[in-house]
Amino acid sequence: MRVHVQLLIGIRDFMVSFIKDDKISLSEGSGGEEMQNLITTFRDTFGGSGNWNNSDNDSATILIGDKYIFFTSDSFVVDPIFFNGRDIGHLAMCGTINDIAVMGAKPLGISVSFVIEEGFSKSDLDKIIKSIADVSKATNIPVVTGDTKVMECGKIDKIIINTSAVGISDTVLDESICDGDVIIVSGSIGDHGASLMAVRLDFDTNLKTDSKPIVDEVLKIKHLIKVAKDPTRGGIAAILNEMAEKDSVQLYIDESKIPVKREVLSLCDVLGISPYEMACEGRFVCVAKKDDAREVVNLLREFDVNADVIGSVRVGKGVVLKTKFGERILSNPRGRIIPRIC
Amino acid sequence: MRVHVQLLIGIRDFMVSFIKDDKISLSEGSGGEEMQNLITTFRDTFGGSGNWNNSDNDSATILIGDKYIFFTSDSFVVDPIFFNGRDIGHLAMCGTINDIAVMGAKPLGISVSFVIEEGFSKSDLDKIIKSIADVSKATNIPVVTGDTKVMECGKIDKIIINTSAVGISDTVLDESICDGDVIIVSGSIGDHGASLMAVRLDFDTNLKTDSKPIVDEVLKIKHLIKVAKDPTRGGIAAILNEMAEKDSVQLYIDESKIPVKREVLSLCDVLGISPYEMACEGRFVCVAKKDDAREVVNLLREFDVNADVIGSVRVGKGVVLKTKFGERILSNPRGRIIPRIC
Repeated sequence: MRVHVQLLIGIRDFMVSFIKDDKISLSEGSGGEEMQNLITTFRDTFGGSGNWNNSDNDSATILIGDKYIFFTSDSFVVDPIFFNGRDIGHLAMCGTINDIAVMGAKPLGISVSFVIEEGFSKSDLDKIIKSIADVSKATNIPVVTGDTKVMECGKIDKIIINTSAVGISDTVLDESICDGDVIIVSGSIGDHGASLMAVRLDFDTNLKTDSKPIVDEVLKIKHLIKVAKDPTRGGIAAILNEMAEKDSVQLYIDESKIPVKREVLSLCDVLGISPYEMACEGRFVCVAKKDDAREVVNLLREFDVNADVIGSVRVGKGVVLKTKFGERILSNPRGRIIPRIC
Repeated sequence: MRVHVQLLIGIRDFMVSFIKDDKISLSEGSGGEEMQNLITTFRDTFGGSGNWNNSDNDSATILIGDKYIFFTSDSFVVDPIFFNGRDIGHLAMCGTINDIAVMGAKPLGISVSFVIEEGFSKSDLDKIIKSIADVSKATNIPVVTGDTKVMECGKIDKIIINTSAVGISDTVLDESICDGDVIIVSGSIGDHGASLMAVRLDFDTNLKTDSKPIVDEVLKIKHLIKVAKDPTRGGIAAILNEMAEKDSVQLYIDESKIPVKREVLSLCDVLGISPYEMACEGRFVCVAKKDDAREVVNLLREFDVNADVIGSVRVGKGVVLKTKFGERILSNPRGRIIPRIC
């Protein structure tokens, strides 16, 4: 009898694992390892990218004549759609603008495509399109094309927005990093993710999203840095691991130097989530030669006083965090992390 | 008492109209007049489009040096996601490729962004990404960037895909049309919309979607035509009205010349929908000088034997349909039309 039961349990576990493997999970959209695996499947199926360069970068680039064209696309499914003074429209603009910015260019134009639930409030839609217009005007990046679809009530959760952008520049910010280089962050990390979690859980905090365009900041220091990346889904944990892997180096990060607001830390403690896996939407991490690091930090502090050197590049592998208790590996995030953060 | 009742009815009607006006309706995503009104609101709020030209065109264009850059974006919410041998992936590729094609260019690269429901079948996803890869390989247009989001089960209906594309060309296909020009259609119309309706209603027909890339066709006749448009949502009724309005001319269409398959006509009859409002996803309408029309038709017939002259441009306004019962106005579609056709 016992053998029968064990056999049945074994079969059930096998079936469950099989069924689970055949279904998309939330973690596959959360910016961590599972999402990277899914994207790898996509890339393998789609085949090569022609003359475009898109290896692990926020934007794809192609050289046409003596100019590089930049191209990027993101869909935004953030929940809730309004949060501490910002909204999905603001986020959709900043997210895509920033993906071009970290490659060292400013978008020439942006597209905004809406998929809206039937019955969605037009006054809410008005607020969202005004946010989009505000970012467009503030950055002088015009909305030049788009699309509007409406799905039946109950078939989509309120509204999702896709923004795509095209940029052009003489150069691409995509130099290899190496032993001795210095790692700099442009401001405090995790504000966006933490503030959104606070709204979802109805916590009473002063946290605000950091969602903002970072074009001016990046372009100001572009000549002094080798590479920049914005830590959205998966936070700095994800992008530091990406950077380390891309150039086969080790990133050695001093935890005491990472700017994290006290309220972000408290909220992360309560939720048991690492602040390094919390999304930012208006920050970037960049790498400079050691001699340029001070100037980079000084220039960045004109935008945000929290900009600072957080570590250095070394020979080795992965991301190592120097904590007050010793050193530990900062892994690429795995699992659900926080869904629908952007 | 009667006055009271009338007053109450009046207040209710006022409230209902107010509530209705404050909510997004399906018709606002269906390609007709209501959608145009919504898009006008967006445009007014977003402000100008800088140096881009995007007036009523399928793609926005900008002149950089001596080259035009083309940019377009579309979200696909088609229901069902698999239909008569094609799927949402095939449609998402063709729809966006064709929006660049009708402007006289071939996409240089395309982005594919997925929003997927948690629990979505990975084998279905595999089929969809293989369809995308097939179109990419057949057209030699690489997928160069994208995004993946996952929403909780029940928060989105299976999967939606946004595709955006960038193209480059020395010229833009966007000449004014005038009295005496000839209107040509590249193949039979309404196949996509009708075939999708047949699937939804479980009708037993041989109808197939016309979803296909039209780059080769347009590029082959580009030097002989003034303008081209692809009749997706809202069908040829929508684009003929757009063309007439844009250049303040009248389009005079001979109904007997419009190629419509018998099964499409039958299905439209049963449903009480005009075939001219049925979406196509692999057809275009173009306008040529009278002297070039025959050559255009001959070249197009190498791709589709149904290509034909369907009418001419005249002094006047709107779209006039010559039927066997006399002439009638072919209006811009209004109302719900068919939701989620692409």
